[in-house]
Amino acid sequence: MKPYILVTNDDGIQAPGIHALIMELLKFAEISVVAPLVEKSAVGHAITLSDPLRVEKFNKNGLWEGLAVSGTPADCVKIALNAVLNRKPDFVVSGINLGSNTGINVIYSGTVSAATEGAISGIPSIAISLTTYTHPKFEVAAKFAGKIVKNLIENPIESKTLLNINVPNVSEEEIRGVRVARQGMANFAEEFDKRIDPKGRTYYWLTGSKNKIEEPDDVDDNLIKENFITVTPLQFNLTDFSKVKAIEERIAKL
Amino acid sequence: MKPYILVTNDDGIQAPGIHALIMELLKFAEISVVAPLVEKSAVGHAITLSDPLRVEKFNKNGLWEGLAVSGTPADCVKIALNAVLNRKPDFVVSGINLGSNTGINVIYSGTVSAATEGAISGIPSIAISLTTYTHPKFEVAAKFAGKIVKNLIENPIESKTLLNINVPNVSEEEIRGVRVARQGMANFAEEFDKRIDPKGRTYYWLTGSKNKIEEPDDVDDNLIKENFITVTPLQFNLTDFSKVKAIEERIAKL
Repeated sequence: MKPYILVTNDDGIQAPGIHALIMELLKFAEISVVAPLVEKSAVGHAITLSDPLRVEKFNKNGLWEGLAVSGTPADCVKIALNAVLNRKPDFVVSGINLGSNTGINVIYSGTVSAATEGAISGIPSIAISLTTYTHPKFEVAAKFAGKIVKNLIENPIESKTLLNINVPNVSEEEIRGVRVARQGMANFAEEFDKRIDPKGRTYYWLTGSKNKIEEPDDVDDNLIKENFITVTPLQFNLTDFSKVKAIEERIAKL
Repeated sequence: MKPYILVTNDDGIQAPGIHALIMELLKFAEISVVAPLVEKSAVGHAITLSDPLRVEKFNKNGLWEGLAVSGTPADCVKIALNAVLNRKPDFVVSGINLGSNTGINVIYSGTVSAATEGAISGIPSIAISLTTYTHPKFEVAAKFAGKIVKNLIENPIESKTLLNINVPNVSEEEIRGVRVARQGMANFAEEFDKRIDPKGRTYYWLTGSKNKIEEPDDVDDNLIKENFITVTPLQFNLTDFSKVKAIEERIAKL
């Protein structure tokens, strides 16, 4: 029996990245596509509580069909698993995102949040991103997504597994290999571009780039620079166990 | 010199929770308030990339002044630290949220995401939430926020410290104490309420409640039920270090 995969993303159901992913997965899997109607980048782990969600049928030029949801990536996975799919998928695959989800970006990532929803529900889940905003070569990333899903079918993995994969935007020949990476911690040097609108009112655009800091070689951003595909297992218990004792001593004096 | 505190929230600048917090902090601190213009609950760690941000002056009946931002809680902290404040605050305090930010809720929390932004920028940061949606007693939580901030001034703490505090909605006499808690992992039993709008179209409301699972006594939700205030140190490196070896063996075969 073919594996059954829920496919979603945060760039929206019309994005070329999800199309490349779907075409690859269709070679060996049965799929359901439930993805945002419009782009929902950098929405973090947002869910829609104050508005109702709407679901529309979507047809990609007769190649595949899906459902477009008026919400966030996390909404898509929630509504798929709890309202619109007839059975539980074997995997959730989210992507292929246009732009890396490495380092501190991970916490802002809609692509990752969709995969996190899958893992919370006990389904092995993968987020996959291409580390470029221009001239994307989605085929390499799509092929790797297919390869890793097939591996996870042949050698089943713990149901709460959540993998964050980033693929350099180079040709297959230039890929130097696959490495398990840790999330980097470089923050952003943020700037706000202050402008005046035609009515004379001030507005701001968020801009900026990552601060360069020394980080270990096995950090995602460093491996990507060396043309490795990175695979980072993630978890979603944010407790900082290393600080428990220090905080305990402190609150004892309150 | 008085400590300088950036105050924000996710319920919006007009919410009673931020007002109670501000009135308490003003007793000993200088503050700047930069908070969302409208409610931004469950936005996760969303940031606004595709729209400009606007900033408006806000005056709370002559009691305090602040800036209302047309974005998310994370946007508020970013724009405060990088565009609108004249100097770096000593603390970021986010809240008081109406509703708990315990267990899996932490990953959807705008309140926590604002504090996370502070910690990423190297400022000790606190998220504080009241575990109720009805008949909130903000005073107890506000008083505790004041107490812990004063403690952190007198005994300085690591700059990246991020504390997630939840306060039970009971009188001060009923509070049994303060405990360091770990984030619980119970997921939600989600349901979507399917309805038909006046034009005959289907829409869905997300609903549901936390699954009851057996968890250790030191989990936030369990301590809250026993009327303890919980303090959970958080971190934002999501790497699951426990799985690195297993994934390494797996990808070696790809």
